[in-house]
Amino acid sequence: MESILKQYPEQFIEKARAIRALVFDIDGVMTDGGIFHSNKGDELKRFYVRDGQILTPLRENGFILGAITGRQSELVRIRMAELKVDFYHQGVKNKYAMMEDVKREYSLDWHEIAYVGDDLIDLACLEKCGLGFMPSDSPAYLHQYADIITRAHSGHGVVREAGDYLLAAKGLLEKTIMNYKNRR
Amino acid sequence: MESILKQYPEQFIEKARAIRALVFDIDGVMTDGGIFHSNKGDELKRFYVRDGQILTPLRENGFILGAITGRQSELVRIRMAELKVDFYHQGVKNKYAMMEDVKREYSLDWHEIAYVGDDLIDLACLEKCGLGFMPSDSPAYLHQYADIITRAHSGHGVVREAGDYLLAAKGLLEKTIMNYKNRR
Amino acid sequence: MESILKQYPEQFIEKARAIRALVFDIDGVMTDGGIFHSNKGDELKRFYVRDGQILTPLRENGFILGAITGRQSELVRIRMAELKVDFYHQGVKNKYAMMEDVKREYSLDWHEIAYVGDDLIDLACLEKCGLGFMPSDSPAYLHQYADIITRAHSGHGVVREAGDYLLAAKGLLEKTIMNYKNRR
Amino acid sequence: MESILKQYPEQFIEKARAIRALVFDIDGVMTDGGIFHSNKGDELKRFYVRDGQILTPLRENGFILGAITGRQSELVRIRMAELKVDFYHQGVKNKYAMMEDVKREYSLDWHEIAYVGDDLIDLACLEKCGLGFMPSDSPAYLHQYADIITRAHSGHGVVREAGDYLLAAKGLLEKTIMNYKNRR
Repeated sequence: MESILKQYPEQFIEKARAIRALVFDIDGVMTDGGIFHSNKGDELKRFYVRDGQILTPLRENGFILGAITGRQSELVRIRMAELKVDFYHQGVKNKYAMMEDVKREYSLDWHEIAYVGDDLIDLACLEKCGLGFMPSDSPAYLHQYADIITRAHSGHGVVREAGDYLLAAKGLLEKTIMNYKNRR
Repeated sequence: MESILKQYPEQFIEKARAIRALVFDIDGVMTDGGIFHSNKGDELKRFYVRDGQILTPLRENGFILGAITGRQSELVRIRMAELKVDFYHQGVKNKYAMMEDVKREYSLDWHEIAYVGDDLIDLACLEKCGLGFMPSDSPAYLHQYADIITRAHSGHGVVREAGDYLLAAKGLLEKTIMNYKNRR
Repeated sequence: MESILKQYPEQFIEKARAIRALVFDIDGVMTDGGIFHSNKGDELKRFYVRDGQILTPLRENGFILGAITGRQSELVRIRMAELKVDFYHQGVKNKYAMMEDVKREYSLDWHEIAYVGDDLIDLACLEKCGLGFMPSDSPAYLHQYADIITRAHSGHGVVREAGDYLLAAKGLLEKTIMNYKNRR
Repeated sequence: MESILKQYPEQFIEKARAIRALVFDIDGVMTDGGIFHSNKGDELKRFYVRDGQILTPLRENGFILGAITGRQSELVRIRMAELKVDFYHQGVKNKYAMMEDVKREYSLDWHEIAYVGDDLIDLACLEKCGLGFMPSDSPAYLHQYADIITRAHSGHGVVREAGDYLLAAKGLLEKTIMNYKNRR
């Protein structure tokens, strides 16, 4: 799995090895930022199958998984249930304060949390968490507050890329691949 | 915030400092031009979360915000309510005449209005307003009628880019970032 | 409008001047090829606002406008009504035969029809019509059967580009722009 | 049809000539990986018209066509019925075991099956089948397990490209094109 680790400077690999929880934003991270409204009052978001695929091996390897989002919608509940995340908090205005609660509940230190966010509201968490990821298409003037800018665009594998990296840094990605390859 | 201001020629920074209102088109500006029709008679549009994120600091800094669009649909009402814009006018055939009304209602001069539009129907407003923005994927033969062609494609941060620029030109973007970064 | 005409070899400008009707496919031309299915049995397609914007000046300048498509769905009826095309035929297996009917009904010769299609089922019409357009993202091995490969991708302005070109070739595009620019 | 065959190394053309069945994944292959959820509990996927267009000539030339997917949804049933595939299996956790069943039912050997998949769950089938295709935007660290990485992105003609190639390798693509071109 060298090919994945080579993408990232040495310093982040050490940080990645300490991570025990992956927490992500929804809009602009799990989605491409699109919010669909319909004339009949329905709202939709587009999620990405390859993000979901990596959550299974992350969970099987003991990672705590969760979402914190500023907006509120029923569809997020549906998708989060499907993904079997440990927690999700919607309608959160102060994500930093919410993360303090999460830390207490799961006995986590800041340096054990990887956070994926894309905008102003995520800055405090991005700065404080052990590893901060931003999508490549997030506002460029905010990139200085993240550790890692993913190659993936939002909604097209940002969480997948973060998850791949966390598994690879702990030497778990190759094992995961072999497990799938040999499943008969 | 130099990195943002450097993108724009000097002349526009002076013009941007005079702006008090940001008025935008919907289809092809707030959306990527997509109009979804369903077999059951529903219609949908895709909005962009990062456009919405910049409207809050713009509003908090006193900007008047509004939309003028040629089409008419219930879903635009829903999204505009969510964004808490000061006004929105749908089904407008003559946007220039509508802008005259807006100017009167909000005591605005042309040079105090930034306008974001993408097509033929927007030309008169783009030419007359203090600052005219067009998305990079709008018809190239109309670009001469705008002041600024955004880097963003329609539906992927055109209004965000205009809003970022207006805040940056008045020295308000850095303060906005610091407010979010230090929110605990 | 030289900037538009320069994109096309001389031979096509003569051919474009003879065109009186613009006929287009739906899936992969007016749309990006996407067909959305829902669990509740609904079907959706995404149309493009800037395609619609050029149909008005085309109609005002006397062009006959119509769609011929192999699939069948209620939503196409809704969009076509909105666009006020002269005709649309759905569920057409033999587009060439249908075009013969259209020719008779509107007293058109093959050389007076511009056709926009993207796939195997469109080949006979593309070859026979006065001007055949294909989107840049249609199968490359079919491009030899079209006169013009648009710069636009399907669902992102293919019909707009064809319409712009037809207007420009007859010297009508500049007038159209001026009409919009001076509308107060 | 040289232009298509030239894209692929010699070794794959021999392998392609032995293929009698084309089996594909849904999410991330027939779709771009997008899973749309709505607030009212509906789920949608976006299929691609040009994938469907190649299934007709494949079927007419005797290819067995089918889908195997890990997720389960009513909309896949609707789309698969529309495409008239020979079989589709949803909710499959072990695709390799399912393929063993398919092999028996259709009297197929591994080397007679082309398989299109995009992720971990597809690795065993990709490795074992006569020809394994992955979309260009699938995880790069898995590409070594496929024979051919398509030029197309997922949901934008991956199955079309595989189908074009299978037809071309057997000398059937040119005949298909001529059939359509001369249909009057």
